[in-house]
Amino acid sequence: MKKQTVKLEDVAAAAGVSKTTVSRVLNNRGYLSQTTIKKVHQAMAELHYRPNVIARQLYQQRTNLVGLVFPTVDNPFFAQLEAQLDRELYRRGYRVLMGNSQNNPQREEAYLRQLLNGQVDGLIVGAHNEGIEQYRDTTLPIVSIERWVSKDIPVVAADNYAGGTLATERLLAAGCQHIIHTNYPHDLPSPNLERRRAYEELMRKYHRPAVTYEVNFDSSVEEKLVIFNQLFDKHPEVDGIFADNDTNASLIMRVARERGRQIPRDLRVVGFDGANMTRTLLPELTTIQQPIDQMASTAVELLQKRITGKKTVGTVQLPVKLIAGTTA
Amino acid sequence: MKKQTVKLEDVAAAAGVSKTTVSRVLNNRGYLSQTTIKKVHQAMAELHYRPNVIARQLYQQRTNLVGLVFPTVDNPFFAQLEAQLDRELYRRGYRVLMGNSQNNPQREEAYLRQLLNGQVDGLIVGAHNEGIEQYRDTTLPIVSIERWVSKDIPVVAADNYAGGTLATERLLAAGCQHIIHTNYPHDLPSPNLERRRAYEELMRKYHRPAVTYEVNFDSSVEEKLVIFNQLFDKHPEVDGIFADNDTNASLIMRVARERGRQIPRDLRVVGFDGANMTRTLLPELTTIQQPIDQMASTAVELLQKRITGKKTVGTVQLPVKLIAGTTA
Repeated sequence: MKKQTVKLEDVAAAAGVSKTTVSRVLNNRGYLSQTTIKKVHQAMAELHYRPNVIARQLYQQRTNLVGLVFPTVDNPFFAQLEAQLDRELYRRGYRVLMGNSQNNPQREEAYLRQLLNGQVDGLIVGAHNEGIEQYRDTTLPIVSIERWVSKDIPVVAADNYAGGTLATERLLAAGCQHIIHTNYPHDLPSPNLERRRAYEELMRKYHRPAVTYEVNFDSSVEEKLVIFNQLFDKHPEVDGIFADNDTNASLIMRVARERGRQIPRDLRVVGFDGANMTRTLLPELTTIQQPIDQMASTAVELLQKRITGKKTVGTVQLPVKLIAGTTA
Repeated sequence: MKKQTVKLEDVAAAAGVSKTTVSRVLNNRGYLSQTTIKKVHQAMAELHYRPNVIARQLYQQRTNLVGLVFPTVDNPFFAQLEAQLDRELYRRGYRVLMGNSQNNPQREEAYLRQLLNGQVDGLIVGAHNEGIEQYRDTTLPIVSIERWVSKDIPVVAADNYAGGTLATERLLAAGCQHIIHTNYPHDLPSPNLERRRAYEELMRKYHRPAVTYEVNFDSSVEEKLVIFNQLFDKHPEVDGIFADNDTNASLIMRVARERGRQIPRDLRVVGFDGANMTRTLLPELTTIQQPIDQMASTAVELLQKRITGKKTVGTVQLPVKLIAGTTA
């Protein structure tokens, strides 16, 4: 336990100003000259004064913290999303409590228990775990990104169905005869499944077999490479792949090349996400780009409305676009 | 402002237990049966009870929060580092307050002012801004990763000098005659400059000209592409590049290919960082891998020592290794 020994009046005395002035500096309130602000800051620094933010929060019943609950930040899509959420929240005076669930339901529950216990003013969630009861039982303002949580929580999502259509049509237009799709296990209800629905409906329309390989988002690279090798073993005829994310697309391309296939001559590949970092490291990939920055700012806008008690819409769907590389 | 209407005694009454029992559940203290815990949690959910965490913090003078101040999370190195810091801190009962500075000194100062105001138990910092005075004036436990902050703050860093040597020797051994290095502007004191020092000393040793292109970490992709095009314009003889990070290496490879150069035939490239995501998206890149996960766990271990008042060492240097791809 730490002790708070230096008091507001000590700072006031050291700076040669009144307690009210120190309080104004701390709260950024009222008219203050730059000289006064500087004197007070110097006195605080010399005395190692830590104003009691916690006590102030208790009085205000606000923390100005927003919790982010996502699977991981170590992925180009979520890294860009969390960076943009952080920027937008900062602009509106909030700071971010990071709660990456690592796709572990126990960990997500533990986070939620703590976060719902009054430590944040609101939550933005996009983790993949399902059946977390706490979401239903709370009055805390929550907004979700690309995840259906409960009927009362608004969802910001890309137009996944349009994205699935764009990707599949691109492969069909290039003359692919045997197109395979990768996606999450279908028992995880997620807007992601709209990509699969679009692919499967187009396949049906063109009387082609629809083959979807189910890959867990949080499987290791090694596990995914095993699955993608099986894909080529069982379907040597494959000449087009619509991957549900760019990371999987890049792993599929690696496996294909190891098997002597040339891209796009022998195999065309379309990814999904189009995060800035992936565009930098893998510019040749043709992909469906989600409007990641816009998704983040929309979610923050909705959350602030909820925090301030305003009405919000149920679902916001944002447009995607195809980025043409050389892989399809 | 929100009002707290449901009280501890209401939860106790609804669950049919004593106030002490509810308090024990909230604080995870004392012996409790699973049935009791469940009853209390159900009562809290039904009543939408938010235990007053803030009041408890005020009493304990601890927040169990650790602030992370890094340039951005939208970069493979920092994404993996922050993800691992989050995991390690979670394991020790801390949660993470994210404070990405976007390499903006004003923003870093604003964060620090708030964080030092008693909202966190400690800080782990690795932002690139220099001359932030607050770091010197605080008694808050701080640990730095790959950044010299002040003489009292321990630094966890990779062995950058060994990394620079490994990279340069790799290019020399492959027969490169004209090796160019990219790094930060040299007026930013950073352990990163040890990579440059190693390169320049080896160049001197072999009587070769040392040419270092200075590139800001936070320049846009477009700005970096301009610089790398200038590099090839001014130094058409270049046949080896040691880039100070993998993102720059990938951009240099893009420019080289656009200019009709084949890699590694006409140009060999070695990067730096070797983050997992880069290894997935760009497996062909030869790079110097930093022990990112180990850097994170070492920093958390040091921080916990500092928080609990134990003595810590000044600098911890961790080994790097060369990952052989096909680009050099």
